Amino acid sequence: MIELAKRLFPINRSITGDGVRQTLSLISEYISLKIFEIPSGTKAFDWVVPKEWIIRDGYVKDDRGKRVIDYKENNLHVVSYSKPVDMAVPLSKLKNHLHTLPDQPDAIPYMTSYYQENWGFCLSDLSAQSLKDGTYKVLIDSEFVDGSLTYGEILVPGEREEEIFISTDICHPSMANNEISGPVVATFIAEWLKRQHLTYTYRIIFIPETIGSIVYLSRNLEKLRKNVVAGFVLSCIGDERCYSCVASPYGDTLSDKVATEVLSSRPGKKFRYSYLDGRGSDERHYSSPGADLPMVTLCRSKFGTYPEYHTSLDDFSVVTENGLLGGFEYVKECIELIEKNRIYKSVYIGEPNLGKRGLYQTITKEKGLGQTLWDRKNVLAYANGQNDLFDLSKITGRPTKKLIPVIDELVEYGLLRASLPMEKKRPGNE
Amino acid sequence: MIELAKRLFPINRSITGDGVRQTLSLISEYISLKIFEIPSGTKAFDWVVPKEWIIRDGYVKDDRGKRVIDYKENNLHVVSYSKPVDMAVPLSKLKNHLHTLPDQPDAIPYMTSYYQENWGFCLSDLSAQSLKDGTYKVLIDSEFVDGSLTYGEILVPGEREEEIFISTDICHPSMANNEISGPVVATFIAEWLKRQHLTYTYRIIFIPETIGSIVYLSRNLEKLRKNVVAGFVLSCIGDERCYSCVASPYGDTLSDKVATEVLSSRPGKKFRYSYLDGRGSDERHYSSPGADLPMVTLCRSKFGTYPEYHTSLDDFSVVTENGLLGGFEYVKECIELIEKNRIYKSVYIGEPNLGKRGLYQTITKEKGLGQTLWDRKNVLAYANGQNDLFDLSKITGRPTKKLIPVIDELVEYGLLRASLPMEKKRPGNE
Amino acid sequence: MIELAKRLFPINRSITGDGVRQTLSLISEYISLKIFEIPSGTKAFDWVVPKEWIIRDGYVKDDRGKRVIDYKENNLHVVSYSKPVDMAVPLSKLKNHLHTLPDQPDAIPYMTSYYQENWGFCLSDLSAQSLKDGTYKVLIDSEFVDGSLTYGEILVPGEREEEIFISTDICHPSMANNEISGPVVATFIAEWLKRQHLTYTYRIIFIPETIGSIVYLSRNLEKLRKNVVAGFVLSCIGDERCYSCVASPYGDTLSDKVATEVLSSRPGKKFRYSYLDGRGSDERHYSSPGADLPMVTLCRSKFGTYPEYHTSLDDFSVVTENGLLGGFEYVKECIELIEKNRIYKSVYIGEPNLGKRGLYQTITKEKGLGQTLWDRKNVLAYANGQNDLFDLSKITGRPTKKLIPVIDELVEYGLLRASLPMEKKRPGNE
Repeated sequence: MIELAKRLFPINRSITGDGVRQTLSLISEYISLKIFEIPSGTKAFDWVVPKEWIIRDGYVKDDRGKRVIDYKENNLHVVSYSKPVDMAVPLSKLKNHLHTLPDQPDAIPYMTSYYQENWGFCLSDLSAQSLKDGTYKVLIDSEFVDGSLTYGEILVPGEREEEIFISTDICHPSMANNEISGPVVATFIAEWLKRQHLTYTYRIIFIPETIGSIVYLSRNLEKLRKNVVAGFVLSCIGDERCYSCVASPYGDTLSDKVATEVLSSRPGKKFRYSYLDGRGSDERHYSSPGADLPMVTLCRSKFGTYPEYHTSLDDFSVVTENGLLGGFEYVKECIELIEKNRIYKSVYIGEPNLGKRGLYQTITKEKGLGQTLWDRKNVLAYANGQNDLFDLSKITGRPTKKLIPVIDELVEYGLLRASLPMEKKRPGNE
Repeated sequence: MIELAKRLFPINRSITGDGVRQTLSLISEYISLKIFEIPSGTKAFDWVVPKEWIIRDGYVKDDRGKRVIDYKENNLHVVSYSKPVDMAVPLSKLKNHLHTLPDQPDAIPYMTSYYQENWGFCLSDLSAQSLKDGTYKVLIDSEFVDGSLTYGEILVPGEREEEIFISTDICHPSMANNEISGPVVATFIAEWLKRQHLTYTYRIIFIPETIGSIVYLSRNLEKLRKNVVAGFVLSCIGDERCYSCVASPYGDTLSDKVATEVLSSRPGKKFRYSYLDGRGSDERHYSSPGADLPMVTLCRSKFGTYPEYHTSLDDFSVVTENGLLGGFEYVKECIELIEKNRIYKSVYIGEPNLGKRGLYQTITKEKGLGQTLWDRKNVLAYANGQNDLFDLSKITGRPTKKLIPVIDELVEYGLLRASLPMEKKRPGNE
Repeated sequence: MIELAKRLFPINRSITGDGVRQTLSLISEYISLKIFEIPSGTKAFDWVVPKEWIIRDGYVKDDRGKRVIDYKENNLHVVSYSKPVDMAVPLSKLKNHLHTLPDQPDAIPYMTSYYQENWGFCLSDLSAQSLKDGTYKVLIDSEFVDGSLTYGEILVPGEREEEIFISTDICHPSMANNEISGPVVATFIAEWLKRQHLTYTYRIIFIPETIGSIVYLSRNLEKLRKNVVAGFVLSCIGDERCYSCVASPYGDTLSDKVATEVLSSRPGKKFRYSYLDGRGSDERHYSSPGADLPMVTLCRSKFGTYPEYHTSLDDFSVVTENGLLGGFEYVKECIELIEKNRIYKSVYIGEPNLGKRGLYQTITKEKGLGQTLWDRKNVLAYANGQNDLFDLSKITGRPTKKLIPVIDELVEYGLLRASLPMEKKRPGNE
């Protein structure tokens, strides 16, 4: 995974344009993406697909002609979507267009101005301090052209048309956790899914943040609302510091149950953020009123919570193969748990005869049954055709991991019948 | 307000008769009341409108002809609804008909005997102690006549036929907080309402306690049950000591939400009483099974909780202009909050583009959005067409006061759609 | 009761056979049981009625011909359902078939092997220790024959066809609390019920554990699911140490409300066990998914919680007349409370005129109404046609015992209307 991550890192991405196309093209080497191009000017709910931003060069030269800020050195140096500029300005005026992080003096901040015309440079505070009075030549060789918004999609079919929906962003330039890690983990998850026997169908999309999810929603809303039973946004999922998730608006979906359970069994620190306090990625759109998709965002160190976030320091000292692997396992376990989850119903009225099947000690001495026997009996006692795996886990106080082998055995012995849970949907806009 | 209060104070009121009529007549100088007269003997649920009680004089004279208890000095001296008496009795026998408060030796208690024939005098314990043995002449020049029960009503129309119902009592004689304060505040609220542009229609009634509300209910039940979405009983609402309310039976109505929110923002001490422990005024009838109106009682110092309650000490040392003004503001804020409350729905699917409307910082640096921006985003995120102002307040943990300007702005920008909440009614007697 | 208990004690019972028949025959001297015989081989859900087990003798003789273990001395000595054996074995091999309780060296354990062919002896650990090396003659003169499973039933009719269902076990050999106490208390409850005027119909069954309840369910399921509004399993209900109950699976049935309320008013220690942790008798079958009968198990010292449980020490040093009487009272109070429970509705809208009925102090001085008056007013305020006795108790915070006389008085005065509560049934297997 780290190899793919390192190949994706240097590409200069923005919400539209060639950076996105190159990114999708690289990912296509691993999985067969379907690529969509949505023309500039296309309306999507409250939004419009913007023009493509092309940037060829960007620098600030001092009076000796030396590039003191150089886009070619680090693509974070130019505020994303900066309009073209070619002028000479005194330092005092230039400063209005310089962005630094005084608290992190060696970090170049990441800034964008997608929806208002502007220009600017980002640089480390140390570099900014070293600029001397004088006149600087400023050039941003950029252009806005009619083009399109690009996104990729892969459908991995399962037995059922009900879907698990996974979404990740491909619009951030050279930062590793936010957001090389999301597409990398999503790519390997897609590749893994293709080798599984699946109950649900999986829809994985690689989109630019906000405008991409809005556009995607506007083109697929009815289908998504009909089929999606659970979904995950993957973001900042490649570091080694912790595991976290952002709950859905009311914290009550199947995605929430799955993520909460899996999160709790991850090693190390873990954090569950509420939607109210923790949201910030595309879950804001997928879970918005009228869309109401049951989404949870899965992260290792969540956006906004680690010091390198949205700076040039978010590099491969933050993201590691181990970190990506943990992220991959986290998502994989969520999927496995959803695939496993069923509603259960005892086949027989009355406690079945476990003894004749060798599932009970046959000489009765009821002082102390083993935990496995209690698990069997408890699952059967509460398998009422309405409780699913998570309900049984909550009722019995036992982790799903412990109940699953017990349930599998009871199903195998013909004592338990499994059926697919039906996700209750919130009322939508229709 | 204190002027009206002082004019109303001396009138000798009872549950029927001229005291009530004079009271309504005085109030009519401020607002145009419709007056109803319900004949004695009229049945109302479990009750019957009693005869009118006329009292011309009442005294106890000592053997030297000196009035030691004199109704003309204070109308609390005669137990309300005392039957006529004209006799000479020794002190020992008289004492069976004297009521004092040993714990408050200088207070004349307020007593009534509406529904059982009886007679008696109330006096301060100090006065009672000073009575010497001997024979006393006792006279109560009273009479029970067929007449009517009188009440007043004012309807202030709004855009909708759904109603806010306000009720207050006019049957207490010369006590200031209980119950000159209620009618005074209700009068000024009515006057204020007439100058507002209103969504709801307001029904304000001035009635004698219990029999008045029962009679009113019996004549208007169907209409009230159909139209009333919230309601308030005003009682003991003119002192400066605290603010309080008595919740509805299950504490879950719109009136409860409104009163709880407004109460919490009042200055000084505040108390929220449960219906179980705190009720005692006409909410007992309006909220009774079968009527089930969503009523909350608004008080400053609630009946039964302040030392001067139901004694001659409940005068203008307790009730002040400031106290009445606070009571008026309390009710007014409740009304304003009901008028303001709507169910909200985000207009667009997905988070709308706040930036293009100047509602978002346009250069994205997501480390720390301001509270106003979070309020905007949170309101939009939870405006799902089912949550009203109170739900949004509860979800976001922000007081309604802070959310209202944010909501107004979002409505103005076309991002939020407001609709009137529909109060879920409890099943009635039909 | 202790007399019946002592007559039942010596009988050698098992899940089928003459021990059960003799037990039912003895009980029939007290109440008129209907006896059912279900042939061996009959299928019932996941189970089959086993063959009858006949045992004539069982012993282990030492090399001098002395019976060192003798079934005729205590019927616990032979593992129930042991197959016939007649052989000589060395002590080392015999030991594989000897069961003792090292922690209770003087207790003979109770063991069964109903559903797997086996044989064995139970004896005190002290006796086992004293066995010397050598060869022992082992004889179990038992036989499995086609016969039948026997159970008894009595229906005590009430006004309504809705039923209260009581079940107790008759399959344990000579142990007093588990399970002579259950049938004894059930017998006297039946006898008492026949002398009451009853609203509900009472169905009391005397069955062998597990197979008996399964067979009974399989033959009566539809009727039980239609009619049973509450039910109790009686077990271990004759000692003096404490009172306890095992809740239904979700703890929310009428049976739970009744048992919880009665339990709380019993003297001494009391324990409420959850279904998850505490179940172990036939409630496991009655409350199983698909049957879903609203059952609570009533015990004094619950099975598995007292040291003499399932040993020869469970005798009349554990079970006493006083203990049985307490158990009887416990069950009786549960029945009385169910018989008493109604849904209440205030007859009049508005608080009724209590004064004219002498139910209120007639001279109003509202500083402090008595508790009885508050109980009256509170019951009327919340008697909304949906709350039953238990709801009113919960709302007012008053025990049902205190509310019942108040309610009775209000009903008598025509102020309250009572109707039978309808138990909401869980969805079944149909």
